Amino acid sequence: MAVQKLKVGVAGLGRMGKRHAVNFLHRTPRADVVAAFTPDDTEYAWAKVELEPHGVTIYKDYNQMINHEGLQAVVIATATKVHAEEALAAIEKDLHVLCEKPISLSIETCQEVIKAAKAKPHLKVMCGFSRRFDASYRDAYEKAEAGVIGRPTIIRSQTCDKHDPSGFFVQYAAHSGGCFSDMSVHDIDLTLWFFGEDIPVKSVSAAGVVAVAPGLKQYEDFDNAVGIVEFYGGRVAYYYCSRMMAHGQEDTTEFIGTEGKLTVNGNPQANFVNTYTDKGIIREVPAHYYGRFEYAFVNEANEFTAAALDNTKLPFNLTSALRAVEIGSYLQEAVRTGKKLYFDEVGNRVEHASL
Amino acid sequence: MAVQKLKVGVAGLGRMGKRHAVNFLHRTPRADVVAAFTPDDTEYAWAKVELEPHGVTIYKDYNQMINHEGLQAVVIATATKVHAEEALAAIEKDLHVLCEKPISLSIETCQEVIKAAKAKPHLKVMCGFSRRFDASYRDAYEKAEAGVIGRPTIIRSQTCDKHDPSGFFVQYAAHSGGCFSDMSVHDIDLTLWFFGEDIPVKSVSAAGVVAVAPGLKQYEDFDNAVGIVEFYGGRVAYYYCSRMMAHGQEDTTEFIGTEGKLTVNGNPQANFVNTYTDKGIIREVPAHYYGRFEYAFVNEANEFTAAALDNTKLPFNLTSALRAVEIGSYLQEAVRTGKKLYFDEVGNRVEHASL
Amino acid sequence: MAVQKLKVGVAGLGRMGKRHAVNFLHRTPRADVVAAFTPDDTEYAWAKVELEPHGVTIYKDYNQMINHEGLQAVVIATATKVHAEEALAAIEKDLHVLCEKPISLSIETCQEVIKAAKAKPHLKVMCGFSRRFDASYRDAYEKAEAGVIGRPTIIRSQTCDKHDPSGFFVQYAAHSGGCFSDMSVHDIDLTLWFFGEDIPVKSVSAAGVVAVAPGLKQYEDFDNAVGIVEFYGGRVAYYYCSRMMAHGQEDTTEFIGTEGKLTVNGNPQANFVNTYTDKGIIREVPAHYYGRFEYAFVNEANEFTAAALDNTKLPFNLTSALRAVEIGSYLQEAVRTGKKLYFDEVGNRVEHASL
Amino acid sequence: MAVQKLKVGVAGLGRMGKRHAVNFLHRTPRADVVAAFTPDDTEYAWAKVELEPHGVTIYKDYNQMINHEGLQAVVIATATKVHAEEALAAIEKDLHVLCEKPISLSIETCQEVIKAAKAKPHLKVMCGFSRRFDASYRDAYEKAEAGVIGRPTIIRSQTCDKHDPSGFFVQYAAHSGGCFSDMSVHDIDLTLWFFGEDIPVKSVSAAGVVAVAPGLKQYEDFDNAVGIVEFYGGRVAYYYCSRMMAHGQEDTTEFIGTEGKLTVNGNPQANFVNTYTDKGIIREVPAHYYGRFEYAFVNEANEFTAAALDNTKLPFNLTSALRAVEIGSYLQEAVRTGKKLYFDEVGNRVEHASL
Repeated sequence: MAVQKLKVGVAGLGRMGKRHAVNFLHRTPRADVVAAFTPDDTEYAWAKVELEPHGVTIYKDYNQMINHEGLQAVVIATATKVHAEEALAAIEKDLHVLCEKPISLSIETCQEVIKAAKAKPHLKVMCGFSRRFDASYRDAYEKAEAGVIGRPTIIRSQTCDKHDPSGFFVQYAAHSGGCFSDMSVHDIDLTLWFFGEDIPVKSVSAAGVVAVAPGLKQYEDFDNAVGIVEFYGGRVAYYYCSRMMAHGQEDTTEFIGTEGKLTVNGNPQANFVNTYTDKGIIREVPAHYYGRFEYAFVNEANEFTAAALDNTKLPFNLTSALRAVEIGSYLQEAVRTGKKLYFDEVGNRVEHASL
Repeated sequence: MAVQKLKVGVAGLGRMGKRHAVNFLHRTPRADVVAAFTPDDTEYAWAKVELEPHGVTIYKDYNQMINHEGLQAVVIATATKVHAEEALAAIEKDLHVLCEKPISLSIETCQEVIKAAKAKPHLKVMCGFSRRFDASYRDAYEKAEAGVIGRPTIIRSQTCDKHDPSGFFVQYAAHSGGCFSDMSVHDIDLTLWFFGEDIPVKSVSAAGVVAVAPGLKQYEDFDNAVGIVEFYGGRVAYYYCSRMMAHGQEDTTEFIGTEGKLTVNGNPQANFVNTYTDKGIIREVPAHYYGRFEYAFVNEANEFTAAALDNTKLPFNLTSALRAVEIGSYLQEAVRTGKKLYFDEVGNRVEHASL
Repeated sequence: MAVQKLKVGVAGLGRMGKRHAVNFLHRTPRADVVAAFTPDDTEYAWAKVELEPHGVTIYKDYNQMINHEGLQAVVIATATKVHAEEALAAIEKDLHVLCEKPISLSIETCQEVIKAAKAKPHLKVMCGFSRRFDASYRDAYEKAEAGVIGRPTIIRSQTCDKHDPSGFFVQYAAHSGGCFSDMSVHDIDLTLWFFGEDIPVKSVSAAGVVAVAPGLKQYEDFDNAVGIVEFYGGRVAYYYCSRMMAHGQEDTTEFIGTEGKLTVNGNPQANFVNTYTDKGIIREVPAHYYGRFEYAFVNEANEFTAAALDNTKLPFNLTSALRAVEIGSYLQEAVRTGKKLYFDEVGNRVEHASL
Repeated sequence: MAVQKLKVGVAGLGRMGKRHAVNFLHRTPRADVVAAFTPDDTEYAWAKVELEPHGVTIYKDYNQMINHEGLQAVVIATATKVHAEEALAAIEKDLHVLCEKPISLSIETCQEVIKAAKAKPHLKVMCGFSRRFDASYRDAYEKAEAGVIGRPTIIRSQTCDKHDPSGFFVQYAAHSGGCFSDMSVHDIDLTLWFFGEDIPVKSVSAAGVVAVAPGLKQYEDFDNAVGIVEFYGGRVAYYYCSRMMAHGQEDTTEFIGTEGKLTVNGNPQANFVNTYTDKGIIREVPAHYYGRFEYAFVNEANEFTAAALDNTKLPFNLTSALRAVEIGSYLQEAVRTGKKLYFDEVGNRVEHASL
């Protein structure tokens, strides 16, 4: 009996969309990419060469693609602003959905997608938080679950990009939702994973600077920002996001418990080589997040596929993705206004700190 | 011609006082310890055995000690609450002063000492911020000065102690001024060193938890706290202090600039040994700050001595120590009240964030 | 136009054969596994579940498999003693060959295969030295080629396995050719890569011990051995192989040149996690070579496939594999007899050291 | 009662002599340097400034110095060729002796000194193997003694100097005894410490190259050499010495046991700073052995002093120093002649390997 494969369509063939297409096509044994969509001519040309010969039909219209015969799932890697409507259209068509983060910068829109997904519980609808699929974060999580560090109490996590002097990320900032919403959302997601997705926020404060990309000011955004999220129940997470790293990508996390600590990527490295010269001992660092997380994305593709084919549980809930977006937006508000935000235990905004 | 040695008296022979006495006695070629003071019987007995045979006169009264014939300098390592009065008495007697940090938890009292010291410019009056004398921090500073990291913009610094289940530090908390004032004051001092001691504070926010030492609550103190200090001019420092480390002392700093980053003690280690067993590869960590900073204290003793004998400049100003205490007290207020504090560019408290 | 894929048969479905089958099937976009062979019932059963549903025909006879219609290439991962005859039969059938190392422990038999391969230059015949496909070794090689370390002069390389108290490797030793031939052959291959495959050997000496596996003595083998290979032209390599590591697999190499040094895997690690507890800071290590070299094997599959389909050059010659086996056998003789071996510049054995 | 201090004379004020003088003068509380000797005018001038003001009498004649009134001990840091005669003269005068390694390159001369020392058991006569006093090696030794690694079986140890293009070490090679005798003697000493000083040698083999200092050839010496020393009882040590390191001093040791491994200085570092730039992450390395072993020399001074004053046992025997010199000379012979040397269990040279 031949293996049954999940028939996947990939929407959006930009940097990340290309990677998803290739991963689902060549590195996900139980999936077949049967369709792809891009409105962009350059991406279309790429798809003709790289995808079509493998039996992928290329569409210039999203709605045509989701009507591709036999399609079972879509991977959404288009611009953030169309994520939600594409996800809703796919759910409507009874398709499983893997949507790049964030589903939307609007909490209401996120909730709409969650509601649509809940109405069709046979569908797998997942937001792509790649670190959940990273072997090191998973190892750390298992150790924490096994009690190696006692009660997780403090989380320090940073998402720091290599400085790109081309200014690409300045244009990108126009629609990114801001540095915390765009970058730290991963660190927030890790926090919810380790602290529990229902943990209530008590206060949020932040500070940011524009140090290397003055163009960010027009978007009220920052190239470096730090923030503290205090939770009810005696837990604190603090974050640093930056687009100013000279050396490369440095996404580091510390999970600090009452009896120990786990670090992930405390010493970033591109590979296992060290170079010893008269300058000292040199270790290179990945230039981009994909150099650090490539295999997490491959895992993501395989596990999403397995959940869809076998109707098994996804590793985390869509509501968790919503909360990450929400906390990201609080940090963004805190850094933009300079104000500290306070919440009561059921999540309502309040004026003053509760002691 | 015989070498002229600085005649030093050591006040207080507790844990740190003993170390100062031994360092000035045996590891500071240009100094002689001629007198020591302690009101404590156990410390007195120690001094009879360890100091007296080397020609040190032991006193039970501070004022008697500073009248010791020929005395030129005092090292003050008594309880914080008497630091200032002892420093003032020593200045009055025309003695150089090396005072353990902090001079006082009261800004006014600190200012009094600064005023007295300024009135006698021939005296060297220094507050003991040991990290200023640490070879690694100095190397980092020289590299930063040389432009290796561009403009220093973000500082992350932590002072994290090995968890001491004996509860000693809970009693200590009654008089320590709180975790930021006691521990992070070193990180703040580093910040002033690298950002400039006159840099104005814009805002201060913090969050803390009591995770392992419930006794701290009676003192409104915390065993883990994180804080952000935002400065005018586009610079931010963020701190973590903890008394909960399972593995040992971990004082780590990152100086992040527009063109690079310097880390100090990113990988703590007790020595050069690694142990490979079926558990993995294990590296041990110093249990206490003295395991990390021993030679910084030796440098401190030698440089203070040289400055006093040769009438050369001390490596940092007393006003810088005052500012560190002040910023520490802001963080302490922020973590205790849960409020974010705001300042204008000349240092006055204001109600709202300046944007 | 559909993509043309290389039709591959996999011979031998033991530990490594299974991995080759899966890699060619699922992680080599340009290859299709169409056939597999195993004489072993358990392996056969595995293949029925894991391979057959993907369209792979399973054979119990090697000669039948190589007659599979349309077959273009075979991967040989059977027992060492049949490698050569299977390779010869495949070449005879005009099939490309990727043969696990070593082709044979007999130099003459290796030469026979080389001769057969040379007679059919359109075929790609490769011996599987996986480290040639490892990203870190390749990075080191590129740096060395770029002159970063000056003239490569000394190589230190070790292949050290986690101690397996089950005694599996004792039985394996009956046919492995000995520790240098089986393990260090990888380090020798690296040496030939960096020093040049034609570099003449001047002398060989070695020493070994049996420390944890007394059963090795019956095979005149050792569980720890060190050896020195001196080359003409002022170059030396020294090796350590061990089956006694408590902590895991540790394959480390140092390429030492006149102006610098490159290390590969100087700090082995299973992933990016460090665990901080009262024992210190712990880093885990892969338990097996596949934990370190998994992606090298995937690269190997893809590059062999590309070379076969596109008729491009393989990254190294079959004669290099022969030389690695030869030098391994010299080390094995040296450790077994305790004698130092000498050679003249054209490779003949001589009685005395040339100075 | 005043402290009794050991009255020390320092012979030789070259690079290491100066350090000994300063260490005994300023960093050894229980010692007083009362005399120093140097035949060299520059060194004499240095001593007038640095030592005389501290009450040290400077001599231009060794025999006059050892007649200095009240002298109790001498530190010998002159040229190797006069070590032994100076040690013998000091013993004759009933003085304790700390002699820089090696006592002599001649085994017979070493034995003469040992005999003289044994005849006066109240004297402490020690050869300066500084690594015995290094905190990290001691920690490793304690762990090994505590059984952490099972039975120590294999030792890898290297002494690698930063390349000094001035050619100083070429001139030095005229009298150094060769690279193994001069550099690896430390690694051999470590081997005797961990394996036991009486362990009999079974075979010795080595290979060397002249890669960067052609001037060494006239002295039959090498700038890079590797050697294997096989011991009876199933133990092997292998060594690498080099004067070609671009990055700095790298003295690394691995103690490999049946149940674990201990490394010392596997990751050399000058201090705790890491520099992150667009070149990657850079860690600097000490330029000289004193950057690595400074505090070991200070310990050595203090422990030698304590042993002399309190008549306590020295941490290792003089015969051990002799054996280290002896094994160093075997390695030197092996690398010079290209021959492998064999020994029977009682230390006699034999012609063939014992199996």
